Amino acid sequence: MTSLDDLAGVGVDRRGGFARHGFTGVDLELRAWFTAEARRRGLGVETDRNGNVWAWWGEPGEGAVVTGSHLDSVPGGGAFDGPLGVVAALNAVDLLRGRGFAPAKPLAVVVFVEEEGGRFGSACLGSRLLTGSIAPEEALALKDPDGNALAEAVRACGVDPGGLGRDEEALRRIGTFVELHVEQGRGLVDLGAPVGVASSILAHGRWRFRFRGEGNHAGATPMADRRDPMLAAAATVLAARTAATGGARATVGRLLPVPGGTNVIAAAVDLWLDARAHDTARTRAVVHTVTEAATRAARDEGCTVEVTEESYGDTVHFDPALRDDLAATLGGVPALPTGAGHDAGVLAAHTRTAMLFVRNPTGVSHAPEEFAEPADCAAGTEALADVLAHLAR
Amino acid sequence: MTSLDDLAGVGVDRRGGFARHGFTGVDLELRAWFTAEARRRGLGVETDRNGNVWAWWGEPGEGAVVTGSHLDSVPGGGAFDGPLGVVAALNAVDLLRGRGFAPAKPLAVVVFVEEEGGRFGSACLGSRLLTGSIAPEEALALKDPDGNALAEAVRACGVDPGGLGRDEEALRRIGTFVELHVEQGRGLVDLGAPVGVASSILAHGRWRFRFRGEGNHAGATPMADRRDPMLAAAATVLAARTAATGGARATVGRLLPVPGGTNVIAAAVDLWLDARAHDTARTRAVVHTVTEAATRAARDEGCTVEVTEESYGDTVHFDPALRDDLAATLGGVPALPTGAGHDAGVLAAHTRTAMLFVRNPTGVSHAPEEFAEPADCAAGTEALADVLAHLAR
Repeated sequence: MTSLDDLAGVGVDRRGGFARHGFTGVDLELRAWFTAEARRRGLGVETDRNGNVWAWWGEPGEGAVVTGSHLDSVPGGGAFDGPLGVVAALNAVDLLRGRGFAPAKPLAVVVFVEEEGGRFGSACLGSRLLTGSIAPEEALALKDPDGNALAEAVRACGVDPGGLGRDEEALRRIGTFVELHVEQGRGLVDLGAPVGVASSILAHGRWRFRFRGEGNHAGATPMADRRDPMLAAAATVLAARTAATGGARATVGRLLPVPGGTNVIAAAVDLWLDARAHDTARTRAVVHTVTEAATRAARDEGCTVEVTEESYGDTVHFDPALRDDLAATLGGVPALPTGAGHDAGVLAAHTRTAMLFVRNPTGVSHAPEEFAEPADCAAGTEALADVLAHLAR
Repeated sequence: MTSLDDLAGVGVDRRGGFARHGFTGVDLELRAWFTAEARRRGLGVETDRNGNVWAWWGEPGEGAVVTGSHLDSVPGGGAFDGPLGVVAALNAVDLLRGRGFAPAKPLAVVVFVEEEGGRFGSACLGSRLLTGSIAPEEALALKDPDGNALAEAVRACGVDPGGLGRDEEALRRIGTFVELHVEQGRGLVDLGAPVGVASSILAHGRWRFRFRGEGNHAGATPMADRRDPMLAAAATVLAARTAATGGARATVGRLLPVPGGTNVIAAAVDLWLDARAHDTARTRAVVHTVTEAATRAARDEGCTVEVTEESYGDTVHFDPALRDDLAATLGGVPALPTGAGHDAGVLAAHTRTAMLFVRNPTGVSHAPEEFAEPADCAAGTEALADVLAHLAR
């Protein structure tokens, strides 16, 4: 058996939780750990053209049953979001072997790279490159907050930047993809169930708001002479809250004044809006409302604002027949929606895809307090083994 | 002659302007440059117990005429704030020698360390340690944003942290201190004068507001379940603007969400309020109003806020007799107040102190656009030489 505790010392964020980002030294440690765990089980390990790692039970081939998740985290993230799905996949292989199960189809465990977009700002980067949902040119234009280009970062992890992009062979091999994930809300708590299947993912995207004003001295500049972009940014934070009505969600979790000195009126402020809703129209309406408020606030302060869409994904409805089949296989577990994006959501447009959720007693995620009870994790692993056996028989 | 251009390549901030902070590798470069310039003039160079550097024309001794400023900058700062006073001091020595002037009193050029507080958050650190306006224990508790302790940083610059604190000998040596500085407003533009003398400095301080809420997932957490400290921080930014009335100034130029992920509701937000006004009562009234607004906004969001005063300095009125004497020496240049803090403001409580300002055509400071015309810099250097000759005769 493999345990999440194996990773407790990898990528610790000094502010709490973990900082495990794609194509970093920490990523290399996580890849080495996964490779060793897979090899210990006699699985064949390979890295695809986009930096995702695959461990194969049996000969790689088309129509495989694939499970897995990601090992990266948001900054200050929890221990479960991502790694639980990878650890459960490895342990499900053990369970199936213990049951004497021999898969009739190829079976693989995959680790997708940079799912959170915590380094390059673009979520589900590995799965979106693999499926062609993001063009390699667009990915190669990404830089991390320190100005490092993606090309250099992938090369440092042994991946050729020239090989990035849609991977037909990898896609053909995926017959069905099932991702197990800690739930990121209290849906299963309310339903009194340790495990459920996913029905849908909210439409969601990220927008960068770049406010520009006039940098100046915080003490010597009269209030009437200021063009302070922090004012417009603050008004935008408040506008995002009021714009998120009727089940929509809008968040500003990242905000960066430039230059960021205590005694300096900022010359510019960048903030990122994360917006989600049940469909594209409602998501775009939220972003439109926030953009209007930002534009008005910037104009009132003599500043400018420039809004850039950094990523967008429409609502995902997981394959209803597969969802119902898996729920029935698991004895009638509930189906529930989520507001969180996943690699499974990216793959759903390209292949038969499903997700299993494991109960989260507080619903907290993307924070050090993220948690699932050991008994629920074990129930999730059992459920994943049952589902893989059902699909690969 | 020494030129500001000598420093054009030192401590360049990749976001524009300069990032030159105290007790860093860049500081060592600046110290080496100053030491070489002073030695080239035959001045004797010494570093005091607090890391300030002194260059002596003649034997060091009590009752000296001291000029100088600082070489550090705010993040993204301009080329003039600080270095102009140091370069003008060195060039004034050349001018005086060219005139055949021999000072009757010791004359020194000083470079104070970490005037901006750009690294350790505490302004005028070198002069406040020297005068005992900050206790060494308080200074030694400071950490930079990366968590590095002041003790380690000063040691790396060859300063013994055990020696920090009020320096009686250095204080006794200063008979009169005159700091030349680029103006950080448009007072001299409006007066049509290239050079002026300072009358007063606004009371000013820095307060850290630490908001704490609940970190969580930006997509999966319903709006009603959030305790998002970014909302309270944004309300505080807006409150600071409305609180700064009647000549007071209030600025939030630095704001740091933790962990700062796009798809993460922040667990905490730190922001720094820079507040200034004509006197202590009015400054404290601004901070009180902003604190009340922050407390209300935090409570409304289920968050907490903790306010810490990081530094405070009362209004400085420069010695009126010295001010009038220097203005007359310079043929009746105008006297004007400033909202910017200076080492001269710290020294004013301990010794006879004055300041000269050089015209700034836009008034912009603490930004890459900070500027003074070469002719005005030359006029400032001439004025400084005249003043030094007047005081040291």
